[in-house]
Amino acid sequence: MNIDEGMQAAIDEMKKGLAEGGIPIGSALVVDGRVVAVGHNKRVQDGDPITHAEIDCLRNAGRLGAGSFHRATLYSSLMPCFLCSGAAVQFGIKKVVVGESRNFPGAPGFMRGHGIEVIDLDVPECVEIMAKFVRDQPHLWNEDIGV
Amino acid sequence: MNIDEGMQAAIDEMKKGLAEGGIPIGSALVVDGRVVAVGHNKRVQDGDPITHAEIDCLRNAGRLGAGSFHRATLYSSLMPCFLCSGAAVQFGIKKVVVGESRNFPGAPGFMRGHGIEVIDLDVPECVEIMAKFVRDQPHLWNEDIGV
Repeated sequence: MNIDEGMQAAIDEMKKGLAEGGIPIGSALVVDGRVVAVGHNKRVQDGDPITHAEIDCLRNAGRLGAGSFHRATLYSSLMPCFLCSGAAVQFGIKKVVVGESRNFPGAPGFMRGHGIEVIDLDVPECVEIMAKFVRDQPHLWNEDIGV
Repeated sequence: MNIDEGMQAAIDEMKKGLAEGGIPIGSALVVDGRVVAVGHNKRVQDGDPITHAEIDCLRNAGRLGAGSFHRATLYSSLMPCFLCSGAAVQFGIKKVVVGESRNFPGAPGFMRGHGIEVIDLDVPECVEIMAKFVRDQPHLWNEDIGV
Protein backbone atom coordinates (compact mmCIF):
# COMPACT_ATOMS: atom_id res chain seq x y z
CA MET A 1 0.00 0.00 0.00
CA ASN A 2 1.38 3.34 -1.05
CA ILE A 3 -0.50 6.40 0.19
CA ASP A 4 0.80 8.98 -2.25
CA GLU A 5 -0.09 12.67 -2.38
CA GLY A 6 -3.31 12.05 -4.32
CA MET A 7 -4.66 9.45 -1.90
CA GLN A 8 -3.64 11.57 1.08
CA ALA A 9 -5.59 14.51 -0.39
CA ALA A 10 -8.64 12.25 -0.86
CA ILE A 11 -8.36 11.02 2.76
CA ASP A 12 -8.05 14.61 4.01
CA GLU A 13 -11.25 15.48 2.10
CA MET A 14 -12.97 12.40 3.54
CA LYS A 15 -12.22 13.68 7.05
CA LYS A 16 -13.34 17.19 6.12
CA GLY A 17 -16.71 15.81 5.03
CA LEU A 18 -17.02 13.83 8.25
CA ALA A 19 -16.20 16.94 10.34
CA GLU A 20 -18.94 18.86 8.49
CA GLY A 21 -21.50 16.18 9.45
CA GLY A 22 -21.53 14.83 5.91
CA ILE A 23 -20.96 11.48 4.26
CA PRO A 24 -17.22 10.78 4.63
CA ILE A 25 -16.00 10.25 1.09
CA GLY A 26 -13.19 12.31 -0.39
CA SER A 27 -11.63 12.63 -3.82
CA ALA A 28 -8.67 14.23 -5.58
CA LEU A 29 -7.63 14.68 -9.21
CA VAL A 30 -3.98 14.47 -10.16
CA VAL A 31 -2.68 15.68 -13.51
CA ASP A 32 1.00 15.36 -14.43
CA GLY A 33 1.91 14.51 -10.84
CA ARG A 34 0.15 17.50 -9.33
CA VAL A 35 -3.10 17.61 -7.30
CA VAL A 36 -5.23 20.00 -9.36
CA ALA A 37 -8.54 19.60 -7.51
CA VAL A 38 -10.10 18.01 -4.44
CA GLY A 39 -13.68 17.48 -3.31
CA HIS A 40 -15.94 15.60 -0.95
CA ASN A 41 -19.50 14.33 -0.78
CA LYS A 42 -21.93 17.21 -0.12
CA ARG A 43 -25.32 15.48 -0.01
CA VAL A 44 -25.95 16.64 3.54
CA GLN A 45 -24.13 19.97 3.39
CA ASP A 46 -25.76 21.18 0.15
CA GLY A 47 -28.94 19.03 0.10
CA ASP A 48 -27.56 17.81 -3.21
CA PRO A 49 -28.05 14.18 -4.32
CA ILE A 50 -25.57 14.43 -7.18
CA THR A 51 -22.53 15.84 -5.42
CA HIS A 52 -20.68 12.67 -4.65
CA ALA A 53 -17.00 13.23 -3.77
CA GLU A 54 -15.71 12.55 -7.28
CA ILE A 55 -18.35 14.82 -8.84
CA ASP A 56 -17.40 17.64 -6.44
CA CYS A 57 -13.74 17.11 -7.30
CA LEU A 58 -14.29 17.14 -11.07
CA ARG A 59 -16.49 20.22 -10.76
CA ASN A 60 -13.77 21.95 -8.77
CA ALA A 61 -11.25 20.98 -11.45
CA GLY A 62 -13.14 23.21 -13.85
CA ARG A 63 -12.75 23.26 -17.60
CA LEU A 64 -9.33 21.62 -17.85
CA GLY A 65 -10.18 20.28 -21.29
CA ALA A 66 -10.14 16.72 -22.56
CA GLY A 67 -6.34 16.56 -22.87
CA SER A 68 -5.85 17.04 -19.13
CA PHE A 69 -8.59 14.59 -18.18
CA HIS A 70 -7.01 11.97 -20.44
CA ARG A 71 -3.75 12.28 -18.46
CA ALA A 72 -5.45 12.44 -15.06
CA THR A 73 -5.68 9.99 -12.19
CA LEU A 74 -8.87 10.20 -10.14
CA TYR A 75 -8.50 9.27 -6.47
CA SER A 76 -11.37 8.41 -4.18
CA SER A 77 -11.49 7.13 -0.61
CA LEU A 78 -14.19 4.65 -1.76
CA MET A 79 -14.74 2.69 -4.97
CA PRO A 80 -16.80 4.95 -7.31
CA CYS A 81 -20.46 4.17 -7.94
CA PHE A 82 -21.95 4.09 -11.46
CA LEU A 83 -22.49 7.88 -11.48
CA CYS A 84 -18.86 8.64 -10.69
CA SER A 85 -17.52 5.73 -12.75
CA GLY A 86 -19.62 7.08 -15.62
CA ALA A 87 -17.90 10.44 -15.23
CA ALA A 88 -14.48 8.76 -15.44
CA VAL A 89 -15.54 6.78 -18.53
CA GLN A 90 -17.10 9.77 -20.31
CA PHE A 91 -14.20 12.12 -19.68
CA GLY A 92 -11.59 9.56 -20.68
CA ILE A 93 -9.82 9.33 -17.33
CA LYS A 94 -7.35 6.47 -17.65
CA LYS A 95 -6.59 5.60 -14.02
CA VAL A 96 -8.68 5.46 -10.85
CA VAL A 97 -7.09 4.80 -7.44
CA VAL A 98 -9.37 4.04 -4.50
CA GLY A 99 -8.96 3.77 -0.76
CA GLU A 100 -11.19 0.73 -0.40
CA SER A 101 -14.10 -1.29 -1.71
CA ARG A 102 -15.01 -3.28 1.38
CA ASN A 103 -17.92 -1.04 2.36
CA PHE A 104 -19.25 -0.61 -1.18
CA PRO A 105 -18.38 -2.63 -4.29
CA GLY A 106 -18.93 0.27 -6.72
CA ALA A 107 -18.46 -0.26 -10.44
CA PRO A 108 -14.85 -1.35 -11.09
CA GLY A 109 -15.92 -3.87 -13.76
CA PHE A 110 -17.69 -1.14 -15.70
CA MET A 111 -14.62 1.10 -15.55
CA ARG A 112 -12.20 -1.70 -16.47
CA GLY A 113 -14.47 -2.68 -19.36
CA HIS A 114 -13.91 0.82 -20.70
CA GLY A 115 -10.13 0.58 -20.41
CA ILE A 116 -9.64 2.33 -17.08
CA GLU A 117 -6.92 0.99 -14.78
CA VAL A 118 -8.50 0.62 -11.34
CA ILE A 119 -6.26 0.21 -8.29
CA ASP A 120 -7.67 -0.57 -4.84
CA LEU A 121 -5.17 0.32 -2.08
CA ASP A 122 -7.37 -1.16 0.68
CA VAL A 123 -6.38 1.56 3.17
CA PRO A 124 -7.37 0.53 6.73
CA GLU A 125 -8.19 4.14 7.73
CA CYS A 126 -10.64 4.50 4.81
CA VAL A 127 -12.27 1.16 5.65
CA GLU A 128 -12.69 2.06 9.32
CA ILE A 129 -14.12 5.56 8.88
CA MET A 130 -16.60 4.41 6.25
CA ALA A 131 -17.58 1.25 8.16
CA LYS A 132 -18.42 3.33 11.23
CA PHE A 133 -20.46 5.76 9.13
CA VAL A 134 -22.46 3.00 7.40
CA ARG A 135 -23.11 1.39 10.80
CA ASP A 136 -24.13 4.66 12.45
CA GLN A 137 -26.21 6.16 9.62
CA PRO A 138 -27.45 3.36 7.35
CA HIS A 139 -30.43 5.34 6.02
CA LEU A 140 -28.24 8.24 4.92
CA TRP A 141 -25.79 5.87 3.28
CA ASN A 142 -28.55 4.01 1.44
CA GLU A 143 -29.95 7.33 0.22
CA ASP A 144 -26.53 8.24 -1.17
CA ILE A 145 -26.30 5.09 -3.29
CA GLY A 146 -29.97 5.17 -4.30
CA VAL A 147 -31.29 2.12 -2.46
CA MET B 1 -43.96 11.17 -31.37
CA ASN B 2 -45.63 12.48 -28.29
CA ILE B 3 -44.15 15.61 -26.75
CA ASP B 4 -45.60 15.35 -23.28
CA GLU B 5 -45.10 17.79 -20.41
CA GLY B 6 -41.75 16.28 -19.42
CA MET B 7 -40.25 16.52 -22.90
CA GLN B 8 -41.62 20.03 -23.36
CA ALA B 9 -39.94 21.08 -20.11
CA ALA B 10 -36.65 19.57 -21.33
CA ILE B 11 -36.97 21.41 -24.67
CA ASP B 12 -37.72 24.69 -22.86
CA GLU B 13 -34.55 24.18 -20.78
CA MET B 14 -32.59 23.40 -23.94
CA LYS B 15 -33.63 26.77 -25.38
CA LYS B 16 -32.86 28.53 -22.09
CA GLY B 17 -29.31 27.14 -22.23
CA LEU B 18 -28.93 28.29 -25.84
CA ALA B 19 -30.18 31.79 -24.96
CA GLU B 20 -27.57 31.99 -22.19
CA GLY B 21 -24.82 31.21 -24.68
CA GLY B 22 -24.45 27.69 -23.32
CA ILE B 23 -24.58 24.18 -24.72
CA PRO B 24 -28.23 23.59 -25.68
CA ILE B 25 -29.21 20.49 -23.76
CA GLY B 26 -32.16 20.44 -21.38
CA SER B 27 -33.58 17.95 -18.93
CA ALA B 28 -36.60 17.38 -16.70
CA LEU B 29 -37.50 14.88 -13.99
CA VAL B 30 -41.07 13.64 -13.70
CA VAL B 31 -42.32 11.81 -10.61
CA ASP B 32 -45.90 10.52 -10.40
CA GLY B 33 -46.88 12.52 -13.49
CA ARG B 34 -45.53 15.82 -12.19
CA VAL B 35 -42.42 17.74 -13.32
CA VAL B 36 -40.46 18.04 -10.06
CA ALA B 37 -37.22 19.50 -11.44
CA VAL B 38 -35.65 20.88 -14.60
CA GLY B 39 -32.09 21.76 -15.57
CA HIS B 40 -29.76 22.50 -18.42
CA ASN B 41 -26.10 22.17 -19.31
CA LYS B 42 -24.02 24.84 -17.51
CA ARG B 43 -20.47 24.12 -18.69
CA VAL B 44 -20.13 27.61 -20.18
CA GLN B 45 -22.31 29.49 -17.69
CA ASP B 46 -20.65 28.07 -14.54
CA GLY B 47 -17.26 26.96 -15.95
CA ASP B 48 -18.34 23.55 -14.72
CA PRO B 49 -17.40 20.38 -16.66
CA ILE B 50 -19.76 18.15 -14.68
CA THR B 51 -23.02 20.06 -14.95
CA HIS B 52 -24.56 18.34 -17.90
CA ALA B 53 -28.31 18.96 -18.26
CA GLU B 54 -29.35 15.76 -16.47
CA ILE B 55 -26.88 16.40 -13.61
CA ASP B 56 -28.26 19.93 -13.18
CA CYS B 57 -31.80 18.56 -13.18
CA LEU B 58 -31.07 15.84 -10.61
CA ARG B 59 -29.25 18.36 -8.41
CA ASN B 60 -32.24 20.68 -8.60
CA ALA B 61 -34.50 17.77 -7.66
CA GLY B 62 -32.73 17.67 -4.31
CA ARG B 63 -32.95 14.88 -1.78
CA LEU B 64 -36.17 13.24 -2.99
CA GLY B 65 -35.00 9.90 -1.64
CA ALA B 66 -34.61 6.59 -3.41
CA GLY B 67 -38.35 5.85 -3.53
CA SER B 68 -39.05 8.90 -5.69
CA PHE B 69 -36.12 8.26 -8.01
CA HIS B 70 -37.30 4.70 -8.53
CA ARG B 71 -40.66 6.01 -9.77
CA ALA B 72 -39.14 8.82 -11.84
CA THR B 73 -38.80 9.36 -15.57
CA LEU B 74 -35.75 11.36 -16.64
CA TYR B 75 -36.20 13.42 -19.80
CA SER B 76 -33.36 14.87 -21.83
CA SER B 77 -33.28 16.68 -25.15
CA LEU B 78 -30.27 14.48 -26.10
CA MET B 79 -29.35 10.84 -25.37
CA PRO B 80 -27.45 10.84 -22.05
CA CYS B 81 -23.70 10.24 -22.02
CA PHE B 82 -22.03 7.74 -19.65
CA LEU B 83 -21.92 10.29 -16.80
CA CYS B 84 -25.64 10.99 -16.94
CA SER B 85 -26.55 7.40 -17.78
CA GLY B 86 -24.48 6.39 -14.76
CA ALA B 87 -26.56 8.72 -12.61
CA ALA B 88 -29.76 7.08 -13.88
CA VAL B 89 -28.35 3.60 -13.25
CA GLN B 90 -27.04 4.42 -9.76
CA PHE B 91 -30.20 6.13 -8.57
CA GLY B 92 -32.47 3.42 -9.94
CA ILE B 93 -34.37 5.55 -12.42
CA LYS B 94 -36.50 3.16 -14.45
CA LYS B 95 -37.34 5.18 -17.56
CA VAL B 96 -35.40 7.68 -19.68
CA VAL B 97 -37.07 9.59 -22.53
CA VAL B 98 -34.87 11.52 -24.94
CA GLY B 99 -35.42 14.08 -27.67
CA GLU B 100 -32.90 12.57 -30.05
CA SER B 101 -29.72 10.57 -30.53
CA ARG B 102 -28.77 11.64 -34.06
CA ASN B 103 -26.17 14.17 -32.90
CA PHE B 104 -24.71 11.96 -30.15
CA PRO B 105 -25.20 8.22 -29.61
CA GLY B 106 -24.86 8.40 -25.81
CA ALA B 107 -25.09 5.26 -23.73
CA PRO B 108 -28.52 3.66 -24.29
CA GLY B 109 -27.06 0.13 -24.31
CA PHE B 110 -25.50 0.67 -20.90
CA MET B 111 -28.80 1.94 -19.49
CA ARG B 112 -30.86 -0.85 -21.06
CA GLY B 113 -28.36 -3.39 -19.75
CA HIS B 114 -29.24 -2.14 -16.28
CA GLY B 115 -32.97 -2.49 -16.84
CA ILE B 116 -33.81 1.09 -17.79
CA GLU B 117 -36.48 1.62 -20.44
CA VAL B 118 -35.03 4.10 -22.96
CA ILE B 119 -37.35 5.84 -25.40
CA ASP B 120 -36.04 8.04 -28.22
CA LEU B 121 -38.74 10.41 -29.52
CA ASP B 122 -36.53 11.72 -32.36
CA VAL B 123 -37.93 15.25 -32.06
CA PRO B 124 -37.01 17.33 -35.16
CA GLU B 125 -36.63 20.54 -33.11
CA CYS B 126 -34.11 18.87 -30.77
CA VAL B 127 -32.16 17.45 -33.73
CA GLU B 128 -32.02 20.81 -35.50
CA ILE B 129 -30.95 22.96 -32.54
CA MET B 130 -28.23 20.52 -31.52
CA ALA B 131 -27.01 19.95 -35.09
CA LYS B 132 -26.55 23.70 -35.55
CA PHE B 133 -24.69 23.96 -32.24
CA VAL B 134 -22.32 21.07 -33.04
CA ARG B 135 -21.67 22.60 -36.48
CA ASP B 136 -21.09 26.09 -35.12
CA GLN B 137 -19.04 25.21 -32.00
CA PRO B 138 -17.40 21.81 -32.51
CA HIS B 139 -14.59 22.44 -29.99
CA LEU B 140 -17.03 23.31 -27.21
CA TRP B 141 -19.13 20.27 -28.00
CA ASN B 142 -16.09 17.98 -28.02
CA GLU B 143 -14.99 19.40 -24.68
CA ASP B 144 -18.42 18.61 -23.23
CA ILE B 145 -18.21 14.93 -24.16
CA GLY B 146 -14.53 14.63 -23.26
CA VAL B 147 -12.99 14.15 -26.66
